[in-house]
Amino acid sequence: MRNKPNLAVRLQENAHLLITEPALYRGRWISEFGCNELHIELGCGKGRFTVETAMKNPDILFVALEKSANAMVIALERVSALGLKNVRFINAFAEYLIEYFAPDEASRIYINFCDPWPSNRHAKRRLTNQRFLRQYSQILVPNGEIHFKTDNHSLFEFSLCELERGGFMIAEVVSDLHERGPVGVMTDYELKFFDKGLPIFKFMAINVKPGPMP
Amino acid sequence: MRNKPNLAVRLQENAHLLITEPALYRGRWISEFGCNELHIELGCGKGRFTVETAMKNPDILFVALEKSANAMVIALERVSALGLKNVRFINAFAEYLIEYFAPDEASRIYINFCDPWPSNRHAKRRLTNQRFLRQYSQILVPNGEIHFKTDNHSLFEFSLCELERGGFMIAEVVSDLHERGPVGVMTDYELKFFDKGLPIFKFMAINVKPGPMP
Repeated sequence: MRNKPNLAVRLQENAHLLITEPALYRGRWISEFGCNELHIELGCGKGRFTVETAMKNPDILFVALEKSANAMVIALERVSALGLKNVRFINAFAEYLIEYFAPDEASRIYINFCDPWPSNRHAKRRLTNQRFLRQYSQILVPNGEIHFKTDNHSLFEFSLCELERGGFMIAEVVSDLHERGPVGVMTDYELKFFDKGLPIFKFMAINVKPGPMP
Repeated sequence: MRNKPNLAVRLQENAHLLITEPALYRGRWISEFGCNELHIELGCGKGRFTVETAMKNPDILFVALEKSANAMVIALERVSALGLKNVRFINAFAEYLIEYFAPDEASRIYINFCDPWPSNRHAKRRLTNQRFLRQYSQILVPNGEIHFKTDNHSLFEFSLCELERGGFMIAEVVSDLHERGPVGVMTDYELKFFDKGLPIFKFMAINVKPGPMP
């Protein structure tokens, strides 16, 4: 993606939505923003999914990570234009997630169409590698959920097989999500696939770590 | 299962459906029985699925394996009573499959509610262990299919993760098959689960071995 014109200015104009030091909120995201739950999106791109999901769930705080400032600026402007109060952005990779979020702080993580990193040499970079899953398990509450979508069959199979060792259990799995018509909120990328009639793979997995003693 | 009364006599009465030396048919099942395709069922139990599927597909030969003669005798009698010409039975485990069927001889294998062998010590006995999958890959044509159903979540996850190394690709996967009402032909066991509203997991996987040169 080419650099957007006036990127710095446009980021500055939406600075109130951008969390530049997320570690400062660690352990107090929910209380700070007066929401009931925290949902995290890894790789929000231009934010179509983020915006639509946040609009439908005003009591949930959505924190969206995106490594590309050029994509994220569009998402910032969309949220700003709609005046949504329950979305914040972090311009970062998922690598340092546990520095931004405390154990048991989030109840859901969305991963939509992440980079499949097709070469086996790069398997560790896939966002469903066990290494990442164990971090998700830490920041998610017991029974917290990962909602994962992809158009990439190899990544889908890889991900399903990493779940158990990463501390998660498959709760729902679909190999052609929109087979009988559109289901749920779609990303920009997903819409293109849907229009071509290509299958989207989805799973929802549950964090199996033990909860607090009753 | 207790021994059925008159088991030996009842087997004898249906001897024409029972293949006692399956290796003699190896490589010529289809020509011998004048069918278009060969489908194999591993563990047919009392044969509800076998019978119903065979009735719907008169041009396909169904060879059903079942290790328990006490269950199989019921299946034999069902097929006999209906006068179905396209079903035969083998009273054996799946262990020696490649001695009964030649490479590229079958186009589909059904595995319905097989023993989950929950202990890791017994993982090799699960019918979706790679060791078995490689045998299925051998006897199935390129793009031949495995249709697998289970109520056991652990077996389901184990099976999905064995597929790739066993030479198969997930083509379809569902975590609650009958969620919106009954789908396809059910086994006796499956009907009980369905009546209780418990989820049935299903996948269909495709044999990825290369086909003949064009």
